[in-house]
Amino acid sequence: MDREKIKALVQEVVQNSLGQSAKMVPIAASNRHIHLSVAHVERLFGRGYELQKQKDLSQPGQFAAKETVTLIGPKGKIEKVRVLGPARGDTQVEVSLFDGFTLGVKPPVRQSGNIKGSESITVQGPRGQLILKEGLICAARHIHMHPRDAETFGVSDGDLVQVKVDGDRGVIFSNVLIRSSERYKLEMHIDLDEANAAGLQNGTLGEIIAIERPSNGMGGCGCGCNGKGKD
Amino acid sequence: MDREKIKALVQEVVQNSLGQSAKMVPIAASNRHIHLSVAHVERLFGRGYELQKQKDLSQPGQFAAKETVTLIGPKGKIEKVRVLGPARGDTQVEVSLFDGFTLGVKPPVRQSGNIKGSESITVQGPRGQLILKEGLICAARHIHMHPRDAETFGVSDGDLVQVKVDGDRGVIFSNVLIRSSERYKLEMHIDLDEANAAGLQNGTLGEIIAIERPSNGMGGCGCGCNGKGKD
Repeated sequence: MDREKIKALVQEVVQNSLGQSAKMVPIAASNRHIHLSVAHVERLFGRGYELQKQKDLSQPGQFAAKETVTLIGPKGKIEKVRVLGPARGDTQVEVSLFDGFTLGVKPPVRQSGNIKGSESITVQGPRGQLILKEGLICAARHIHMHPRDAETFGVSDGDLVQVKVDGDRGVIFSNVLIRSSERYKLEMHIDLDEANAAGLQNGTLGEIIAIERPSNGMGGCGCGCNGKGKD
Repeated sequence: MDREKIKALVQEVVQNSLGQSAKMVPIAASNRHIHLSVAHVERLFGRGYELQKQKDLSQPGQFAAKETVTLIGPKGKIEKVRVLGPARGDTQVEVSLFDGFTLGVKPPVRQSGNIKGSESITVQGPRGQLILKEGLICAARHIHMHPRDAETFGVSDGDLVQVKVDGDRGVIFSNVLIRSSERYKLEMHIDLDEANAAGLQNGTLGEIIAIERPSNGMGGCGCGCNGKGKD
């Protein structure tokens, strides 16, 4: 082990221990949900149908719709799965791995927007059914942030960081993707399995304690959307 | 920050980076299950009934029984919950926090055996029903090990350690309790929420990377059982 590496490690450890660089991020647990294309909104809810807003979500422009659907897998089904709006390019279903067991399918852990070759699922709406060949994923943990936050925190879009959550069920999450855009508000998104594993309460803050891998220069989600990707 | 503390931190970091002290532990995910007292076996399955072994578990003497029960909460029920044997002193039900949502109850995160003031639940068997005032918990993460392993790893019964799991969903679990006894075989136990959050595959190994808090001298589970506790 060379002298420079030891020096860098020591600096990092001492800085962290002195708490000079607390980088706190609010954490929100995402329950299962579905994003629908315009065509699929019509398929499930009827011709010319438009999603009705129930409430705004934390990310600007995004909302929980009044509409829900049923997911049907080979082993089971899950009812009342919330539709998120507005309608977007591709339909995408996000569930936890636990939901995958319930349905009898294996959603791959993917960044939003990266659905190629992902799991298939059947979606039932009040006016029609949709058989998705792909589109079911388990959303990979990520942090939305404005470029101002990224600058403050010393991170870049596409970085993978470690986030520490304290408490009886304290955990440190690895491979948390930084997604920076002027459209984003500071918030970390994890799924219900991860929230339960960390004993997460509403309003819990996580701390970015290390950059694990700097950006690959391809933009946040690595799906080729070049940072214009989905939530 | 004083010189001694910095020195200790540096030693720790350098040791870990050199990989001189890899302390690997096999991890097993525990699905929901119930331990029953002799009296409660009879209440649920009939007078004089004895549990039938289906298969041995990793911890010596413990087995999965052929019998299952149904858990009934205010919001929902969960069927086919496995009974573990042999019958023991107190009945104890272990579920995940997700199961808690399904049932409509809030199991506290506790070490096995520490059920005082824990959540209530109704248990249905083929021959009778049991209303537990307390006994429903979410089992806190822990590592069973033989005193020989403890010596090798440089840990003691009752220590709280950090365990790192690699992979796309890599996490570091904090507050993992060391439970050392001659009756135990080396294995870390987590619940399904935690296993999913870590993307755990069968046979995954975790690495003990730090002792967070040394033993309080009260024995492993902190429940007053003085190390004679349950699994």
